[in-house]
Formats: sequence, structure tokens, C-alpha cells
Amino acid sequence: MADEVILMSFWPSMFGMRTVFALEEKGVKYEYRGEEDVINNKSPLLLEMNPIHKKISVLIHNGKPVCESIIQIQYIDEVWSDKNPFLPTDPYQRSQALFWADFIEKKLFLCGRKTWATKGEELEAAKKELIEILKTLQSELGDKPYFGGDTFGFVDIVLVGFYSWFPAYQKFGNFSIESECSKLMTWGKKCMQRDSVAKALPDYDKVFGYVLQLKKVYGIE
Amino acid sequence: MADEVILMSFWPSMFGMRTVFALEEKGVKYEYRGEEDVINNKSPLLLEMNPIHKKISVLIHNGKPVCESIIQIQYIDEVWSDKNPFLPTDPYQRSQALFWADFIEKKLFLCGRKTWATKGEELEAAKKELIEILKTLQSELGDKPYFGGDTFGFVDIVLVGFYSWFPAYQKFGNFSIESECSKLMTWGKKCMQRDSVAKALPDYDKVFGYVLQLKKVYGIE
Repeated sequence: MADEVILMSFWPSMFGMRTVFALEEKGVKYEYRGEEDVINNKSPLLLEMNPIHKKISVLIHNGKPVCESIIQIQYIDEVWSDKNPFLPTDPYQRSQALFWADFIEKKLFLCGRKTWATKGEELEAAKKELIEILKTLQSELGDKPYFGGDTFGFVDIVLVGFYSWFPAYQKFGNFSIESECSKLMTWGKKCMQRDSVAKALPDYDKVFGYVLQLKKVYGIE
Repeated sequence: MADEVILMSFWPSMFGMRTVFALEEKGVKYEYRGEEDVINNKSPLLLEMNPIHKKISVLIHNGKPVCESIIQIQYIDEVWSDKNPFLPTDPYQRSQALFWADFIEKKLFLCGRKTWATKGEELEAAKKELIEILKTLQSELGDKPYFGGDTFGFVDIVLVGFYSWFPAYQKFGNFSIESECSKLMTWGKKCMQRDSVAKALPDYDKVFGYVLQLKKVYGIE
């Protein structure tokens, strides 16, 4: 029996994008189900498949749901293990890849959100913190082409969705990521050249328009 | 060369405890370095070994640090794979164990903290949320002896440290976890009978005294 793979996601989500990158890198055939409105109107299938968090993304493999994007990437790496491994085989190197994925998960989303959702001192602190986070990541990247070394790996998949949000962060926060983190931007451009990434990474203008919508929904001037 | 394993931790930390349980279950010989004051006075070794988060716990294996307790447990499971596996081998079951560990990580600490650090409406909401979280976990446990089924596994290791904090949550929050989650309490008692757990799980009174100290440090009446 052929595998039935469904991905429930929402196009601007940097979390949902990760799973597209992972499936594309592995060459897995899947059905993409883009949710319409993940804030006010969640689909019955989403509520059924992720009853705990009630959030996208959900990967459904032969009827069984896997939730949380980082766990989905590990799952995809283990199930389709014959092609393009994401995690190294050495336990120490694996632990370090998981560490950086966890660092991105804990730090980047909330801080990035503040660039368009806050003002004044809170915004200034967020901009400073965001640059620090990105410089830390840039330092971990070092002179390697990818976080995974010569190959596009686990940390690359976890981080690159945020790259499509950087222009919006910069524009709303009125600051420059590029001038402080040029190496990281070069890495992002390189990732964009991959078919897997180009497939799901949205245009900057589209993300910008979505943030304008979000500000309206949450009543942020 | 024999392995040199050092664990830098702090006795009341439910995160640090996890790594003790994992090392003990695997029968790994290690040196325990209890930090004295992880709030105001971090040791130079801690800052050197965890420069990113500057937090306990840190597992140092042959001079190389592994940070973040859940990643440490995965690392220990992979390096000492010959005894007592924590994660199942089946990718789907693994993803589900990782999901519940992540659920505990995201939900329990912050909500538990509110039972002794907040008042009024915020406290009432936290108590309600905490019971909901624990009931969700109890439902996942079902009729199994452990979250890992017949064996003490990954999710058990991640959760059981919190069990030593439940009496403090109950006392400060003035509510009963036991009356609503008796099955989960039975699970906790069962875990306590394991040598690995008994080794690191502190007495209730000691945790209670530590919370009193914390309230003083943070100026919470």
C-alpha cells in the first residue's frame, strides 16, 4: 500500500513551512491542505487531528497525526531514512543539532513578533534581542555553507522559514538585520536556491501584507 | 578510556532531576556537581559549559557539554543504548513520546509556578489550568502502569520530577491535585519505588522550604 501523507498547514507559518521543506527534501508525495483561517475558524479535521494544541501544522501519515513541527521533521527523517538525512548519526552531533533547533524554537518567534506588535521601549529591547539571537546563530553557522555543514540539515530546516519574515521584521521595526548579520543573510539566499525551500517560502510582500492583516485583527496600530 | 560523566545540577530542579533518573536507569557512573546558587551566583564552569543559556543542568561527557534536559535524556538513551531504552524504536511511537515530553515542557513549569507566585484571579486560573494539564496527562497514561507502557520510559522521566513539587503546589495554591488526579498520583508513587527516582526526588518538606526561600528572593508575599 502506498503511503498516504497529508500536511495541514497555513502558508505564512514558519513552523508549517519546515515540514514542507522536510517532505520535499525527502521526495515524499503528499497532499497539502492549506487552512483558511487558523485564528477564528479551525477546521473540524484540525481539531480532530490535534485535539491537544488545536494548531497547525499537522502531518497525517496513513491516518495517524504527528503534531509539532520539530517532531514532524524528526519523524520524516526516521521514516524516509534512505535519502538526505537531516540529523547526523553521531549522538553528540545530534544533540547539538537538537540544541540549536530548541534555541530557535524558544527564542525567535516571540522576539520576532515584538518587532511588529510592540512600540517604544519594548520594541527597542526586542530589536536588540533579535539581533543578538541572530548573531548567536550566525556565530554557530561560522564559515560552513549550512548549519548542517556541507548539507542542508535539521537546523537549516528549522530556521529558514523565519528568513521570509526578516524583511517584515525590519520594515515594521525600522532597523536592519542585513547590516549586522550579512553572513546569515547569505545563508538564507543560498537556502532559497533549493527547490524544497523555494516551494514553500512565501514572497516578502505577501508576508508583509499578512502582518498588516494580523495587526488589524489584534488591534495593533 | 573510561567515560568521564559529570552532571551539573541543582537539587530542586525538576529538569536537573530528569538527567539523574536517566543516568541511574542506565547504570552510568557519574559525578554529581550540585550548584550552590543558580540565581545569583553561577559557577565559572557552568558559564563555560552553557554559555548560551547559562543554566543548569549540564551533562558533560568526556569534556563535551550537552545542555537542555530533554536533549540530555535522548543523548543518554543513544550513547548507552544497551540497557533500558527510554524511547520506543517505532518512529510513530517515538514521535508520540516526544510530543508528550514537549507538552509537559511547554505547559507544566510556568503553570505550576503560578500556584505559589500569584494571587487572586491569576491564581484561580492557574489552578484550573494545572488540573486540566494533569487530567490530560492522566488520560494519556490511561490504564498503563507507566507512560512508557510496561516500562518506565521517556515521558515518565520527563514528568516525574514535577511529582515532588505537587505537594508545594497544593499547599501554596490551597487546592487538591490528589482528589482530581488520583491515577496520576498512583503513577507517581509507583515511580518513587524505583531506585533511580528515589535517588534524586527530594522530600516534600525540602521543596516546600525551597519555595518559601524563592518567595522571599522574588519578594512574593
